[in-house]
Amino acid sequence: MSQYRIFNHEDAIGYVRQTARLDPDVTLQGEEIGDGNLNQVFKVCQPGKAKGFIVKQALPYIRCIGESWPLTRDRARIEAEILLYHGQYSPEYTVAVLHHDPALSVILLEDLSDLQVWRQALLEGQHFADAPAQLGIYLAQVHVHSSDFRLDYLGQRTAQLQFANPELMAISEAVYFVDPFCDHERNNVAPEIRDDAEQLWADQALKLRVARLKHDFRCKGQALLHGDLHTGSVMVAAGRLKVIDAEFGGYGPMGFDLGVIIANLLLNFCSQSSAPRRLQRIQDISALWHSYHAQCLRLARETPDPALAAPEYINDFLQRVWQDALGYAGCEIIRRTIGVAHVADIDNMADPVQKTASQRQALALGRMLIMSADQLDEAQLEKTLLQQSTETER
Amino acid sequence: MSQYRIFNHEDAIGYVRQTARLDPDVTLQGEEIGDGNLNQVFKVCQPGKAKGFIVKQALPYIRCIGESWPLTRDRARIEAEILLYHGQYSPEYTVAVLHHDPALSVILLEDLSDLQVWRQALLEGQHFADAPAQLGIYLAQVHVHSSDFRLDYLGQRTAQLQFANPELMAISEAVYFVDPFCDHERNNVAPEIRDDAEQLWADQALKLRVARLKHDFRCKGQALLHGDLHTGSVMVAAGRLKVIDAEFGGYGPMGFDLGVIIANLLLNFCSQSSAPRRLQRIQDISALWHSYHAQCLRLARETPDPALAAPEYINDFLQRVWQDALGYAGCEIIRRTIGVAHVADIDNMADPVQKTASQRQALALGRMLIMSADQLDEAQLEKTLLQQSTETER
Repeated sequence: MSQYRIFNHEDAIGYVRQTARLDPDVTLQGEEIGDGNLNQVFKVCQPGKAKGFIVKQALPYIRCIGESWPLTRDRARIEAEILLYHGQYSPEYTVAVLHHDPALSVILLEDLSDLQVWRQALLEGQHFADAPAQLGIYLAQVHVHSSDFRLDYLGQRTAQLQFANPELMAISEAVYFVDPFCDHERNNVAPEIRDDAEQLWADQALKLRVARLKHDFRCKGQALLHGDLHTGSVMVAAGRLKVIDAEFGGYGPMGFDLGVIIANLLLNFCSQSSAPRRLQRIQDISALWHSYHAQCLRLARETPDPALAAPEYINDFLQRVWQDALGYAGCEIIRRTIGVAHVADIDNMADPVQKTASQRQALALGRMLIMSADQLDEAQLEKTLLQQSTETER
Repeated sequence: MSQYRIFNHEDAIGYVRQTARLDPDVTLQGEEIGDGNLNQVFKVCQPGKAKGFIVKQALPYIRCIGESWPLTRDRARIEAEILLYHGQYSPEYTVAVLHHDPALSVILLEDLSDLQVWRQALLEGQHFADAPAQLGIYLAQVHVHSSDFRLDYLGQRTAQLQFANPELMAISEAVYFVDPFCDHERNNVAPEIRDDAEQLWADQALKLRVARLKHDFRCKGQALLHGDLHTGSVMVAAGRLKVIDAEFGGYGPMGFDLGVIIANLLLNFCSQSSAPRRLQRIQDISALWHSYHAQCLRLARETPDPALAAPEYINDFLQRVWQDALGYAGCEIIRRTIGVAHVADIDNMADPVQKTASQRQALALGRMLIMSADQLDEAQLEKTLLQQSTETER
């Protein structure tokens, strides 16, 4: 049994050498490349080679804060198990776990250096036209296969127990549904939009809907979620896509994953001064939903449970997933605008006046999505966004 | 560590002597009194005394079927833990667990010989006018205290894991939502109502709603349910009430418990030829709901979670619980009429013509509840039942 120690790059190299079964004579170099908030990440490869291995290690605290905020290292085991589970059903779109060591809280992952982070690509104005449809297939595969469309009672309950991730999902509950809807010390509200935030905090009708979304996030255990599917958890290249970073995963409402990724596309939408790029984001969302819907329909129809096989049931079910998704998208947009963790799409905007306008637009859009979740179908959302895009133009 | 063996009455006496810390000179006698389908139950007491102790032991199979249908003995541990948990929050109305031994799958329970089974009392035409309101308080106490109104994310998730009861709840899923809605070999359909059953099995709109109720039963983990709250799980006496038999408990939708008990009152309603007794059942249901609603409101308002404290949120939440309850009530009525396990209220009816009429009425009522769950408030249900009662009269 290996004993936990915080890795340096030598440890990472040793771990790769031991687990990847490389020739002992091979020279390896390692460097820390982590840019996330929670963990350390090493890239280990042969000198001169672009591709090697990724070693991700959980620290017993939140990396960007330090030892004052302890956090279970068990998240590495949970992440590895979720990625392996998702990888069973969506091997094409899930990063491959090559090895994991629960005692060391370490995961050995395939190196995706030939792909780039989707958020970064969007920031640079690149368009990966296939990515939304691919992501829709990925989500449908991991959702349907972990849901009652595939698992019997015992199977699904066992999965719910295996992937219970209370400590990290408690953080999600706080940062999505609590902090952004009150004047919480963890929030990060730009002074220019303080009034807008205060208006939000006083909006009882909105808070009522958010309370319901919070309840469902905790109690509606439909499928094994990724749990943190923003554009920084997706790696893309021409015709390729891989999802990474599943440590916030666990059972929850399907609409949550869908909502989070839609929200991140919308945050990019709000940050764009270019009309064609705004249009791309609208099309991305449309492509994502249509792909998800079609793939869910196809997979759900093959359910061994005759009670759930009726197309009418599946369509009705997916309509509710869409409604949930809009609500969760609204929460993600709002929390990324006034909560503790922002997104680069808006935070990096150079022009302070445009940045404030984008933040304001994001808050309004987030609120609208939450309030209109049960009235907007995909076509109506598209129409609304096109209208907003044209108004921004003027 | 004690080792499992199937108790005879001597073992039961020995267990009581050891765990109830009685004077070693006390004479004890024991007899098997179990009338349930799953377990053996002994009453152990001093000769000539009416009250003693109850020893309930889980067998490694379903008692009424035999060793051919194995069933986890762990259900005894789960039941003891659920009763203890419920007893913390509703000590007045939960049977007291005095000791339990997970290895022996045995629970030592307080003897409730001075109370009678509610179903039996109803069959004998006795009216315990306080029982519905007391049961409403019990349900509100155990539901709210195990819900997000009281528990934070970590606390509730931990409880969901502790009380996971997949094997027994899988049986519930099958007997409530699967068998009665298809021509299943486990069903027990009287030839006289075979046509009605077949009509039900062909009713796609009904099956769609049942599929949704099934999904929610599995995925909507709102509170720690009793899980089997029919009138045989409730003991009553003048001004007193105790709930027993929680082995089917686990996290699920609050409306399930409420629906099951409402259904059992309605099954008695359907079996009654006496108009005043039918009226009593209507009033029982009304009293139960009003008590549950008022007590939930009171307890939920004291939530430490400000997001859930708004009266508007709680009222909206309870309205959904009511809608769920009507749907689950419909399923319970139907499964108790054509599924594997019937109720004495109707099965014991002497007049075969009236019995068939009652079964037919039950199926129609069950169907109506499922189909109209989102349209009937409590007052409208009462009105509908009064109408049915009058029509039966003519």
